[in-house]
Amino acid sequence: MTYEIIKELTTTKKDKTPDHQLGFGKRFTDHMFSMDYEEGKGWHNAKITEYKPIELSPAATVLHYGQAVFEGLKAYATEAGEILLFRPDQNFKRLNRSNERLCIPAIDEEFALYALKELLQIDRDWVPTSEGTSLYIRPFIIATEPYLGVSPAKNYKFMIIMSPVGSYYAEGINPIKILVEQHYVRAVAGGTGEAKAGGNYASSLKGSELANAQGYAQTLWLDGKEHQYVEEVGSMNIFFKIAGKVITPALNGSILAGITRDSMINVLKSKNIPVEERKIAFLEIVEAANNGTLEEVFGTGTAAVISPVGYLKWSDGAIDVNNGQIGEVTQMLYDTLTGIQYGKLEDTFGWTIKL
Amino acid sequence: MTYEIIKELTTTKKDKTPDHQLGFGKRFTDHMFSMDYEEGKGWHNAKITEYKPIELSPAATVLHYGQAVFEGLKAYATEAGEILLFRPDQNFKRLNRSNERLCIPAIDEEFALYALKELLQIDRDWVPTSEGTSLYIRPFIIATEPYLGVSPAKNYKFMIIMSPVGSYYAEGINPIKILVEQHYVRAVAGGTGEAKAGGNYASSLKGSELANAQGYAQTLWLDGKEHQYVEEVGSMNIFFKIAGKVITPALNGSILAGITRDSMINVLKSKNIPVEERKIAFLEIVEAANNGTLEEVFGTGTAAVISPVGYLKWSDGAIDVNNGQIGEVTQMLYDTLTGIQYGKLEDTFGWTIKL
Repeated sequence: MTYEIIKELTTTKKDKTPDHQLGFGKRFTDHMFSMDYEEGKGWHNAKITEYKPIELSPAATVLHYGQAVFEGLKAYATEAGEILLFRPDQNFKRLNRSNERLCIPAIDEEFALYALKELLQIDRDWVPTSEGTSLYIRPFIIATEPYLGVSPAKNYKFMIIMSPVGSYYAEGINPIKILVEQHYVRAVAGGTGEAKAGGNYASSLKGSELANAQGYAQTLWLDGKEHQYVEEVGSMNIFFKIAGKVITPALNGSILAGITRDSMINVLKSKNIPVEERKIAFLEIVEAANNGTLEEVFGTGTAAVISPVGYLKWSDGAIDVNNGQIGEVTQMLYDTLTGIQYGKLEDTFGWTIKL
Repeated sequence: MTYEIIKELTTTKKDKTPDHQLGFGKRFTDHMFSMDYEEGKGWHNAKITEYKPIELSPAATVLHYGQAVFEGLKAYATEAGEILLFRPDQNFKRLNRSNERLCIPAIDEEFALYALKELLQIDRDWVPTSEGTSLYIRPFIIATEPYLGVSPAKNYKFMIIMSPVGSYYAEGINPIKILVEQHYVRAVAGGTGEAKAGGNYASSLKGSELANAQGYAQTLWLDGKEHQYVEEVGSMNIFFKIAGKVITPALNGSILAGITRDSMINVLKSKNIPVEERKIAFLEIVEAANNGTLEEVFGTGTAAVISPVGYLKWSDGAIDVNNGQIGEVTQMLYDTLTGIQYGKLEDTFGWTIKL
């Protein structure tokens, strides 16, 4: 960790939005972190500056060939006035796995966490304190070389920006309706599905748009090869509770290794609830619904933590899950994880880091 | 066509690179075209200005979720001093097809072509004149809304930038060696493979990097579902000549509808050479090589026009194609297409547009 962070702080602080008007990802804090990479020179020029537009060549690789990766995590204010980060080391670890897939040079994970903490310390008063609110943190790396040839870029920019976000469940947790996508594909084995790379999200927009237009909140993505196996829901991992056992698709290369997903698995194990990671045919879910053993369905991700699914529609039918109500295990997982994240429950897993 | 183009031209013109030092996609002309989109307002603010960096919010959609599409075409200087464009209408048509897949609002194709011609007129003296050189034109659209939610953006920027490029075959056309990629995937049916979208190119970088490291110029991409059917080579379409007949993979949703590909098919038909678009198993190529009927293999694209393949390596073996020499039909196609593009041959197809 031999980098130094140059700090050019602003004195003109922005007005803060009231917590109940925050929404998601539209407002940003006063400062941002950035660092540059140049072939032969490595990562350098680490800086915390005012949050402001960046300059890019119109020929920058990221604008043409999608060479970019990102992460998402949150900082939480506790009742005692402390700020907690939830498993940030895992985010920078995954960022480097995404880098590897996208031919982007690795970052120093320890330094990245140090830089994040420095930035967070400076914008500490931007962490909202109302029930359910948090500070969403977005580390990302973009290829900046001004070159139209298709090859890994020689220049990159690593940035961290932060956005205060409102309670995802301001009106209580309402199970969502999802549509099983049977034409479009989010990712395929051998592609970039397990990386947090723009292309997966760009590919998902069309299916989501069509699902939304029909009144569904999210798309259930099936595998790209056979359109038979469950992969993700919207941009979340998915879990099913069938006859007392919780199952979730195994990490197969096209599924994102969600940190919330991993945390849920660990919480389930700690509560002695059977949990299994394996290949799941969509037909198996239909059968479980038909024979009355499908008990709960939920998505997991950083933004919502957990999103119960109350209704599942596909071309040949539909499934009501748990009468459209949030299930017992779903509620327990939500309470446990948010309890740990906001410092209300003891963190027996060692997941939180105090600022 | 009710848009007006605001022109803010520069008086400080850049020095031009000598034709023999041009290379590809690193140098840009004096000016660029840009136009903005805002939900509710549509496309507006069409401008030709100095070629210069653009300002983007660090939260702009393109930097996170890969919502971006592009095109590539060329302008050619004829011996008579005219400038020709090759099928530019097809590029803007395809740009709109890519837009549709990526949930980007359509552009006015006729206006886009008008804008390109205006820009080209202004930077007319940037079209290089040496044998084999041309002006590469890159229209592209990026999502610019500063919002971290995963949904189609409400703001976009459409730009055209231009780069004088050297002769692809300064040292004569040398057949390349390619490696059949058996793990990584460029695209899959239901994904964005038929769109000219960044994600496909980002996904292809790793396979190309591995192929290059082993001494191969390009990767032969197989289908994402079964890893059995031929799709593309590098970022080109691919053709095989077997027992006198030319075959190329049919457009199946994961293959780019190349304009050079389409032009080659039309030239072949005009010469009464049998040509077929269909699903092609890689095994079929191996069998043809084994029984001595594999005559020629070549890739097609805007940059190289045609790229003969002389050697094909996969996990279980290798194929020498035509003793590593360029084939008769490959050479004929190259001569015909470049002949039309540079105005040396009569354009019986009506493909070229005079500036």
